[in-house]
Amino acid sequence: MKSMIDLRGAWLALLALLLILAAPAQARAQDPLPSWNEGAAKTAIVSFVERVTKDGSPDFVPVAERIAVFDNDGTLWPENPVPFQLAFAIDEVNRMVAETPALKDDPMVAALLAGDYGKLLEGPHHEGLLHIIALTHAGMTTEEFAARVEAWIATAKHPKFDRRYDQLTYQPMQEVLAYLRANGFKTFIVSGGGADFMRVWSERVYGIPPEQVVGSTARVTYELRDTGPVLIKTMDHLFVDDKAGKPAGIHQFIGRRPIAVFGNSDGDKQMLEWGTIANPKPSLGVIVRHTDAAREYQYDVNPKSSGTLVEALKDAPMRGWTVVSMKDDWKDIFAAP
Amino acid sequence: MKSMIDLRGAWLALLALLLILAAPAQARAQDPLPSWNEGAAKTAIVSFVERVTKDGSPDFVPVAERIAVFDNDGTLWPENPVPFQLAFAIDEVNRMVAETPALKDDPMVAALLAGDYGKLLEGPHHEGLLHIIALTHAGMTTEEFAARVEAWIATAKHPKFDRRYDQLTYQPMQEVLAYLRANGFKTFIVSGGGADFMRVWSERVYGIPPEQVVGSTARVTYELRDTGPVLIKTMDHLFVDDKAGKPAGIHQFIGRRPIAVFGNSDGDKQMLEWGTIANPKPSLGVIVRHTDAAREYQYDVNPKSSGTLVEALKDAPMRGWTVVSMKDDWKDIFAAP
Repeated sequence: MKSMIDLRGAWLALLALLLILAAPAQARAQDPLPSWNEGAAKTAIVSFVERVTKDGSPDFVPVAERIAVFDNDGTLWPENPVPFQLAFAIDEVNRMVAETPALKDDPMVAALLAGDYGKLLEGPHHEGLLHIIALTHAGMTTEEFAARVEAWIATAKHPKFDRRYDQLTYQPMQEVLAYLRANGFKTFIVSGGGADFMRVWSERVYGIPPEQVVGSTARVTYELRDTGPVLIKTMDHLFVDDKAGKPAGIHQFIGRRPIAVFGNSDGDKQMLEWGTIANPKPSLGVIVRHTDAAREYQYDVNPKSSGTLVEALKDAPMRGWTVVSMKDDWKDIFAAP
Repeated sequence: MKSMIDLRGAWLALLALLLILAAPAQARAQDPLPSWNEGAAKTAIVSFVERVTKDGSPDFVPVAERIAVFDNDGTLWPENPVPFQLAFAIDEVNRMVAETPALKDDPMVAALLAGDYGKLLEGPHHEGLLHIIALTHAGMTTEEFAARVEAWIATAKHPKFDRRYDQLTYQPMQEVLAYLRANGFKTFIVSGGGADFMRVWSERVYGIPPEQVVGSTARVTYELRDTGPVLIKTMDHLFVDDKAGKPAGIHQFIGRRPIAVFGNSDGDKQMLEWGTIANPKPSLGVIVRHTDAAREYQYDVNPKSSGTLVEALKDAPMRGWTVVSMKDDWKDIFAAP
């Protein structure tokens, strides 16, 4: 027994020695953001992380308070030609019509099938769109909905890139997520998309567990059935986690003010403000601009596009927000499938 | 340099040796739940944790899915003579009346000051009580509210125990929280209390960070003021995280089904069901009974008390829920201040 312990001790000593010798070389070799070109944006991110993690520095932020929030559509993956959840809803309507042809008599379903999206957006609350969302996102159990999302994301492909939607995450942002987590940050999604939609795949795709996904939600109703308890999705008390809803959602779900906020559109302006203006802690605001027509899309300052970026971009210099140009700052766009 | 490394290697080897020699003795000495008497309840908790954490066993649950939820009032700290948040509201009304005497003309404030709680509970939605909650919990920024809660909990004392409220947590439950976390569980509070009320002190008192607190909530409104952004508390879209609201709140805020559920009253019945009935994973349901009139309170099966436990207790044998008697199962009640 004694000699066995000696052996293990010696082995551990050898391991420790190797670690000591290897450490400096490893530090030199490791660029935490290899898909980012050197430049102001990369420097801003890295220097912020170094400042808040440096023990004893006046800018040090304890691990528990290192909260980073990320918009999803347009920030972690594309949002064109339509946000991916809308592509899901359209595919779902088609699937449902194939199963139940009478659904075609529904005027909003008919408008959708005819590609008449304008009709869906009529009315002060886009009643047609809400009706389509209700049809595809409510009136079923949470487990049934999760199964539908899983089946869709396992097969549906993006029309431009001919890849599965979950294989279109931005490699440079995956690196930021990993880099922040390696530095004690808790990473959250804060998206206008549905929480129930994102939570099905967020852990697998981004390493972000369901409990760190803030999104649009509506109430669920509890029922104890003979086969066990279920939660039924409804459209009641719909909470839209966009624009001024984003800081509200952050407060409601996280209960802590973030110190790092990543977005790409005017829908992220209020959460950028909440994270960075008059925050007693050091903070970082980052806006990703869609400037790469060849590799992705170029659209952001177009006030009619999905993911309009006009107001937040105008405020960026005054607020000290870092602006990232996909074309200039990113070596690669998409993470390898 | 070489000899320095040799020295460090030898030192690490020595440390490793000490750790190897110390480990079995430490394991023998460590009872994870020292304030629990030996018995069926303690055995149920420990054997559940051992089952789900044993690699390769059919009951193994990956770390990411080890979600444990705890009711707060009556499960982690007392709820008598009134839930502590109600004591806060009463103290707040008194503080506000001292500042603004005209408030006394408000009939519900007058009823509260006269101790006429029956009047507050009249009406189908206890309109008087909601009015008092609105008065003390809304119409201010989230930061102002947090400061009020902090000031209160730093000074107010419990009438029976003459201790600060945050010094009345149950030692045996603090041990369960620590034991579960040491075994890879993420611990959440799921309480009928206000999320904004609990998040002020949950991390300090229970080691549970704000983002792991699920509670009753209402909407907050975002405003960008000259001094910076604020969130204003309202009473709109009030969500009551109690009874059937608890599994709904778990889904909304956590998005994962828990495998361990701790409660003490009929208000926890539905989340006990949601966590344990037809859960594809192994699961544990625990009910804490208030059976100790001398050291705490004895009240639970009284259908008129705060924290009534009738239905859930009746279901416990059929559901396989573990019933804890504070009197018999707990050596100590309160954690040392």
